[in-house]
Amino acid sequence: MLYPEPIQDLVQELAKLPGIGPKTAQRLAFFLLNMPKGEAEQLAQAIIQARQRIRYCSECFNFTDADPCFICKNPARDAGWIMVVEHPKDVVAMEKTREFKGRYHVLHGAISPMEGIGPDELKIRELVTRLERVNPKEIVLATSSSLEGEATALYLARLLKPMGFKVTRIARGLPMGGDLDYTDEMTLTKALEGRQDI
Amino acid sequence: MLYPEPIQDLVQELAKLPGIGPKTAQRLAFFLLNMPKGEAEQLAQAIIQARQRIRYCSECFNFTDADPCFICKNPARDAGWIMVVEHPKDVVAMEKTREFKGRYHVLHGAISPMEGIGPDELKIRELVTRLERVNPKEIVLATSSSLEGEATALYLARLLKPMGFKVTRIARGLPMGGDLDYTDEMTLTKALEGRQDI
Repeated sequence: MLYPEPIQDLVQELAKLPGIGPKTAQRLAFFLLNMPKGEAEQLAQAIIQARQRIRYCSECFNFTDADPCFICKNPARDAGWIMVVEHPKDVVAMEKTREFKGRYHVLHGAISPMEGIGPDELKIRELVTRLERVNPKEIVLATSSSLEGEATALYLARLLKPMGFKVTRIARGLPMGGDLDYTDEMTLTKALEGRQDI
Repeated sequence: MLYPEPIQDLVQELAKLPGIGPKTAQRLAFFLLNMPKGEAEQLAQAIIQARQRIRYCSECFNFTDADPCFICKNPARDAGWIMVVEHPKDVVAMEKTREFKGRYHVLHGAISPMEGIGPDELKIRELVTRLERVNPKEIVLATSSSLEGEATALYLARLLKPMGFKVTRIARGLPMGGDLDYTDEMTLTKALEGRQDI
């Protein structure tokens, strides 16, 4: 036995988090034990509160503490412009640009036959129902440019275009600051395909 | 506003942990929100339990859930052989070797004038009281070989040797697998000074 049981438990629970191995878990556990007691309990309470108060928005399926979420209930956001993303964290990333004035739809994943995730495991049925209701003027597919993200975008395009919707895909190309020399061929191919008049 | 308030709070609390920046905090928060609810609450409970049940052993000042701790109350551990370490995590590291059969004394830090930590901020008074009571046959100074650890070891040696105790310092030298070529001069100097007949 290396630790008293409560420390052992804490190390085990921390080690379940992504990117946290046994050594980091131990370091975090000792840090939590050395913190002022109130602060450690604030973290515990924040976890409990987040789990109790956060659920999916019934409209866009983003995380929210009120239904509909603050984006879906904001009249300044264009309800006719819908961006489809894989994860809630993608909404955060896009919001940071302050460029997108429409609303989101969070799929909670991407199609991945390898992991047994098909369209039914994602919020695609909910997307179709929503689109039929709001009849948007444009649907932007902003899934990632991984194999799974591309497959999901292709699936959605084939599903939604025959329904008469305008469907677009965010551009793939050279990232800002990117060097051609260090860019993989797939990215360069996409950058060439997506070239525009300047 | 990028997140609903409960997520914002959780990200903020997670970002207080060492080595966890805002990006990792966000990743952990979303992971906790996607976990089965019970598992997230197990982590919260583990933090609360650890803080409620863990205190210092009144003998050696290691973290413990019972007083005295499981090492101090183990009659198989030599009470006359005391290893002085900086932190509870050092006890864990030493215990993993299964080589040390004595007991510990945890200082909870090292002397560091830069950070305003003097002998009075450490469990040194408690160490002296304990040593006078148990009259050990050997005290092993196992503070780290940082500037602060060495200063602490020197301070303790100067304090305890005049009291008639046998005081030793763990060896400093080439780590196992170490290459002379890649070893700093201080370590090589210590390795040379500490050379032994083979």
